[in-house]
Amino acid sequence: MTTAVAPITPAHTTAPPWPQGFISAGIAAGIKKDGSTDLALLTSDGRGSGELSAAAVFTRNLIVAAPIQLSRANLAASGGRVRALLINSGCANAATGDDGMLRAVQSTTALAERLGIDSRSVLVNSTGVIGVALPIDRIKGALDALIAAQQPGSCESFARAIMTTDTRPKWSSRSIHWMDGVTQRNCTVTGVVKGAGMIHPNMATMIAVIATDATLEPDELHGHLRSAVDCSFHRISVDGDTSTNDSVFALASNRAGTAPTAQLAEAFEQVGQELALMVVRDGEGSERGIEVRVTGARTQGDALQVARTVAMSLLVRTAVTGGDPNWGRILAAAGRAGIPFDPNRLRVGAGGIALFADGSPTHAEIGAVRAAFTADCVRIELDLAMGEARDLFWSCGLTKRYVEINADYTT
Amino acid sequence: MTTAVAPITPAHTTAPPWPQGFISAGIAAGIKKDGSTDLALLTSDGRGSGELSAAAVFTRNLIVAAPIQLSRANLAASGGRVRALLINSGCANAATGDDGMLRAVQSTTALAERLGIDSRSVLVNSTGVIGVALPIDRIKGALDALIAAQQPGSCESFARAIMTTDTRPKWSSRSIHWMDGVTQRNCTVTGVVKGAGMIHPNMATMIAVIATDATLEPDELHGHLRSAVDCSFHRISVDGDTSTNDSVFALASNRAGTAPTAQLAEAFEQVGQELALMVVRDGEGSERGIEVRVTGARTQGDALQVARTVAMSLLVRTAVTGGDPNWGRILAAAGRAGIPFDPNRLRVGAGGIALFADGSPTHAEIGAVRAAFTADCVRIELDLAMGEARDLFWSCGLTKRYVEINADYTT
Repeated sequence: MTTAVAPITPAHTTAPPWPQGFISAGIAAGIKKDGSTDLALLTSDGRGSGELSAAAVFTRNLIVAAPIQLSRANLAASGGRVRALLINSGCANAATGDDGMLRAVQSTTALAERLGIDSRSVLVNSTGVIGVALPIDRIKGALDALIAAQQPGSCESFARAIMTTDTRPKWSSRSIHWMDGVTQRNCTVTGVVKGAGMIHPNMATMIAVIATDATLEPDELHGHLRSAVDCSFHRISVDGDTSTNDSVFALASNRAGTAPTAQLAEAFEQVGQELALMVVRDGEGSERGIEVRVTGARTQGDALQVARTVAMSLLVRTAVTGGDPNWGRILAAAGRAGIPFDPNRLRVGAGGIALFADGSPTHAEIGAVRAAFTADCVRIELDLAMGEARDLFWSCGLTKRYVEINADYTT
Repeated sequence: MTTAVAPITPAHTTAPPWPQGFISAGIAAGIKKDGSTDLALLTSDGRGSGELSAAAVFTRNLIVAAPIQLSRANLAASGGRVRALLINSGCANAATGDDGMLRAVQSTTALAERLGIDSRSVLVNSTGVIGVALPIDRIKGALDALIAAQQPGSCESFARAIMTTDTRPKWSSRSIHWMDGVTQRNCTVTGVVKGAGMIHPNMATMIAVIATDATLEPDELHGHLRSAVDCSFHRISVDGDTSTNDSVFALASNRAGTAPTAQLAEAFEQVGQELALMVVRDGEGSERGIEVRVTGARTQGDALQVARTVAMSLLVRTAVTGGDPNWGRILAAAGRAGIPFDPNRLRVGAGGIALFADGSPTHAEIGAVRAAFTADCVRIELDLAMGEARDLFWSCGLTKRYVEINADYTT
């Protein structure tokens, strides 16, 4: 796992292309009331076998939406070799019982019929309001137009069609070059993501798709996805709530040949981290990012636990919103993380400035401290002085706007 | 443990008296800048042995303020038999290193000298800003006046002097009557509390004092305190952050004889619950209480874990602030609590109205549902259908005012 600082601003301001072998589209099917695009399709371009290696990481929430259950089943049934990924926004098809599963199945069979493929080779997900029936007729009615709209190249229409309350589409891409004998080869890893926690009332959360043209067996792809998710989506939080529809899909078109494993792993991790940080930065009235970096832990698990506890503390998050260099709250949060350390050896800093050491405040120059707490991304550092392990976690300031978005709403 | 609904409004609008055998005072020592009272003393009235049985439950935070460390040491050294409890507000004496401990010791020795007692029989705590030196000279200078101001009866001046950002003083009291042969006897349990989480920037949290005139060995008193804290202060949360100075003290004057154990336990639990709920209701811009009641769990621990997760979910708490009957968020929070249950057998309700059952929404009448979500205390019910165990947890709506209090502040 890399713990290098990933850039917190999008690397691409214009949408990167999907890797070769993919075509995609995003259109308005009338699921969202405002007429914006709400149905997205990513498939093989049909050349070669047309088969895509597939892997996915799904929500750990016990309440799992119907499309997630169906995708899990189809991944297993197809042995991780699929043909299409269909995602709608505007309706989560979660907490919808047997009828919800029926409608999810109908969406995959309707698409499979039109594409002439096995319905078990379709992955599907939904995001939007929980507990509302999926408007399956609108989806069916839009499938022909969706398929006709598919193009190779830019991921933009796909990225936009999966948005819910996101203020902007989010994407990231990396290219890898290597020598195959005397031939130079290259492949691409491109990802898109939507959502920033369950930010809208009854809204269901984060969906990411990472695609590559590298040649990968499904289990190899799963390995890259796992480690990418581990150092990215598993290390961010906007409100601590996971949703019924959280998922990260990975697809490989197997067109570009076998890329060097280490470089490919790095590309997956970097794309994952960029996407994850975009989610945090676009989250729920967030104005300021928070990065908590813990060193000197006995184990990486200890480091992560302290980092997560500090990053998710409401008092730390409101202090960051206020630009308030309130290191007492950082101490108090670290102290309740359940990880043993000696408070007299603990060192706490922000933006490289020591704030607390040897059991006492350092009385650092207040101007410099204040600057560290009003940065675009406030970097909090804790050295537990217990060992050599380290880890980090990202979150964002808790704002009045967050409460507004989530409270000032009438069903 | 009782899981009966404790009244969520104060049982006493005028301050109850301390039990017999106690005298108390609260005066302004100049620690707080606004001149309000900030130094509180509770001692034996000196009749009889003058000895008080004592017990305490302290913060589990690793960062423990100097006065807490000193009180823990004095409790051990005295075998749980003390003479006085001294509390100041306006300064937490936390994260103050060796100098902080020195000042805490100075406060106890100065008081012990004046009272003619062993300094190890003094318990002490502080609440206020973290990382600031305790103004020991002001405390020493105020001790004579503090001792002179001590009176039997009302707990009001004590309860007011330990307040920080509390909007009102908080107290609760229960009397017990029993027959000792042909003689009717009675005793009293009276408690006071301050604080509602770390609600003010750099503020250190909750302190409660529960006193009784029942005759109790220190270990018996500790047992009553433990079970009272378990069903009260351990079941509330305002922001999930524990502080460096959290503590609940119990003192017994041993004047009233041996009360029936079951009744005394109930009195301790009821006083504890009333105090805890007052803390939640006076917390951090809170406008609406939340009670989450989980039934049908395999173990009480499972029930508590689900109840706590739902009660502390930011999305549930903002939904309550908005009066929004957003049961999807309740499901999502329960689903990530880490406790296994079958979503198809889960039942979720609010204020007695079923919202979700058999894996689907119940489509309950919206007017009734909305009324349940705009109650003074929103009562959320979950039946896991996994067993017979139950538990509950209290919190409060998350408001813009909370963010304001905690963010819109400049050090």
